[in-house]
Amino acid sequence: LRNVWAHYKNLLGVENQLVSLGEGDTPLVASSHIGASLAFEHLYFKLENLNPTGSFKDRFTALEIAEMIKQRKNICIATSSGNTGSSLAAYAARYGIRCYIFVNYHAPKEKLLQMLAHGAKIYRVRHFGDSAKDTMAVFSELKNYAEQERVPLVVSAFRFSPVGMQGVKTLAYELADQLEQIDHVFIPVGSGGLLTAVWQGFKDCLGSTQLLPKIHAVQPDGCATIIKALLSNSDEIKPAIATTKISGLAVPCNIDGSLALAAIRESGGWGFSVTDEEIWRAQALLCQQEGIYAEPAGATALAGFIKAFQQGFIRKQETAICLITGHGFKDMASIEKMNTGIQVIEREQISEIIRQGLS
Amino acid sequence: LRNVWAHYKNLLGVENQLVSLGEGDTPLVASSHIGASLAFEHLYFKLENLNPTGSFKDRFTALEIAEMIKQRKNICIATSSGNTGSSLAAYAARYGIRCYIFVNYHAPKEKLLQMLAHGAKIYRVRHFGDSAKDTMAVFSELKNYAEQERVPLVVSAFRFSPVGMQGVKTLAYELADQLEQIDHVFIPVGSGGLLTAVWQGFKDCLGSTQLLPKIHAVQPDGCATIIKALLSNSDEIKPAIATTKISGLAVPCNIDGSLALAAIRESGGWGFSVTDEEIWRAQALLCQQEGIYAEPAGATALAGFIKAFQQGFIRKQETAICLITGHGFKDMASIEKMNTGIQVIEREQISEIIRQGLS
Repeated sequence: LRNVWAHYKNLLGVENQLVSLGEGDTPLVASSHIGASLAFEHLYFKLENLNPTGSFKDRFTALEIAEMIKQRKNICIATSSGNTGSSLAAYAARYGIRCYIFVNYHAPKEKLLQMLAHGAKIYRVRHFGDSAKDTMAVFSELKNYAEQERVPLVVSAFRFSPVGMQGVKTLAYELADQLEQIDHVFIPVGSGGLLTAVWQGFKDCLGSTQLLPKIHAVQPDGCATIIKALLSNSDEIKPAIATTKISGLAVPCNIDGSLALAAIRESGGWGFSVTDEEIWRAQALLCQQEGIYAEPAGATALAGFIKAFQQGFIRKQETAICLITGHGFKDMASIEKMNTGIQVIEREQISEIIRQGLS
Repeated sequence: LRNVWAHYKNLLGVENQLVSLGEGDTPLVASSHIGASLAFEHLYFKLENLNPTGSFKDRFTALEIAEMIKQRKNICIATSSGNTGSSLAAYAARYGIRCYIFVNYHAPKEKLLQMLAHGAKIYRVRHFGDSAKDTMAVFSELKNYAEQERVPLVVSAFRFSPVGMQGVKTLAYELADQLEQIDHVFIPVGSGGLLTAVWQGFKDCLGSTQLLPKIHAVQPDGCATIIKALLSNSDEIKPAIATTKISGLAVPCNIDGSLALAAIRESGGWGFSVTDEEIWRAQALLCQQEGIYAEPAGATALAGFIKAFQQGFIRKQETAICLITGHGFKDMASIEKMNTGIQVIEREQISEIIRQGLS
């Protein structure tokens, strides 16, 4: 049976024979239209939306749950803007662990229903994910409790859950196996954990070979914490008020931001901020020109790539990868925007419709 | 880059270097709780819901679209209860083909929105999928038109689209590679095309080895066309009025039913009909005990397995596989049934909630 943990055991330096729901080993597909429309030949999409629960977080959760099983824990607490919670709820159900998930106030309904279906207890916390102050307060409250009661706290970031974040490095291992030469990787940034893990993963497998790609962060204008630090040549990730509507990217405080900033600079990459509208446009482009069904956060890397390409950061003969981090089904309100209407017809109208369509 | 078509080129006898969105090569995972609760050790789930558009239909569509590209077609017509249309719309978008999809009147909203997002033109046809008479009339109208105008007609069944159905055989090739010994495969049956393709696929790779599994059909009571033929020891698939609410399994007429019936008998398998309630219960079990997110049709095989096991059709030391054919996200009304409520809380309540949960 395919298993990403067995395959990369030596490279990762971590064993996991306990937990799997088929995470990882996701397809990398070449762009069919968007690259060509920019006269850019080597554009690829990494389909992390095809992980078991619909996002890259499954690579994280598998190791978190394996650790809980080793430590004989049967309960955990977590925070989530949606995808970590969906993933945790599914794996926790599979391995008999109860979970209490405190979610961003504005998490999309589909992600909440997914957690509930898997039997998690969930609580929407007012203001969580909006302001830096409220968000940090929630984290520190949970961290105190977790330490006091010796209950695992699951937050998909190096700062809180470094064991699970090791698992996300497998994403880079796969990319290095799937393509010989990668020049640029575009990554949506919320906490910065994903970007940090991908960079560490590339260093694990390509560190001594001069083949390391440039890692570029993409954030919405309405929560561009890391981009601002890059633009002002600062080491400080300043707290923000998140005004973006892009689920998963509203992280108004510095969680793994400093780690991500260092990773971007070490790789020679850069940061790009885009409007929510540009993200939704990229999402529609993926649907309509590539056949790829992504949630808005999952289309954000593409919005950043388009901006970077237009601004001259990428040369035509280079190779670029956009990470498609989450599934289109995860946020149906954003899909509903593309709804062009459904007509109800009688059987007798079929021939007329086809005749019109073919003409 | 991983490609199921390159991998199985010789076995399948069909080339496809033109079309891929990462379909196939889906995980097979062992049951963690349901098998154990029945004291049945070797129960597995094949996660076809993790295909690019969320169902096994992508194996079919890839070859259909490849054929259109070879024949330089840039338009097609199709019927669908939902998943074929979602798949076709995505692949057609990727390869620049316009599609007109005539869908069952009762197709779930999520499947319709997915088709629209990918730019397909869709029409809900009144009564289509309800009665055998109306359903056959739609098929024959479309078939006449397709032949007359030389436009490809896409229906995921051997009777209409035998080229694409070859692709579905890869599902069996993978299973034969993933497990050494398979005794039973449980398959949800609508038209009967999936079951027929899986059986043909097993014969391609295991035909001379005495290792062929028994293939079992599972249908809802409200459209048990093939089960009725099995129970009455008849070769005739009688037309029905579909009363089931399970999207994808309401096929009231004989499309690939006769082929499926022959396949079941040749394999030594049997048929099991289950109520819609049993299917929804199996869907909830998959969510809550296995961490697997399936639409109702995708949980139907499990409902059938449970019935077969309870009726003594399966021995404890044997190996059984249930095909999880479609994603949980595809039918949110069925997920909403599992909604146990979401509480909005203030940050100050967190500690109290955790204290209660831990005690």
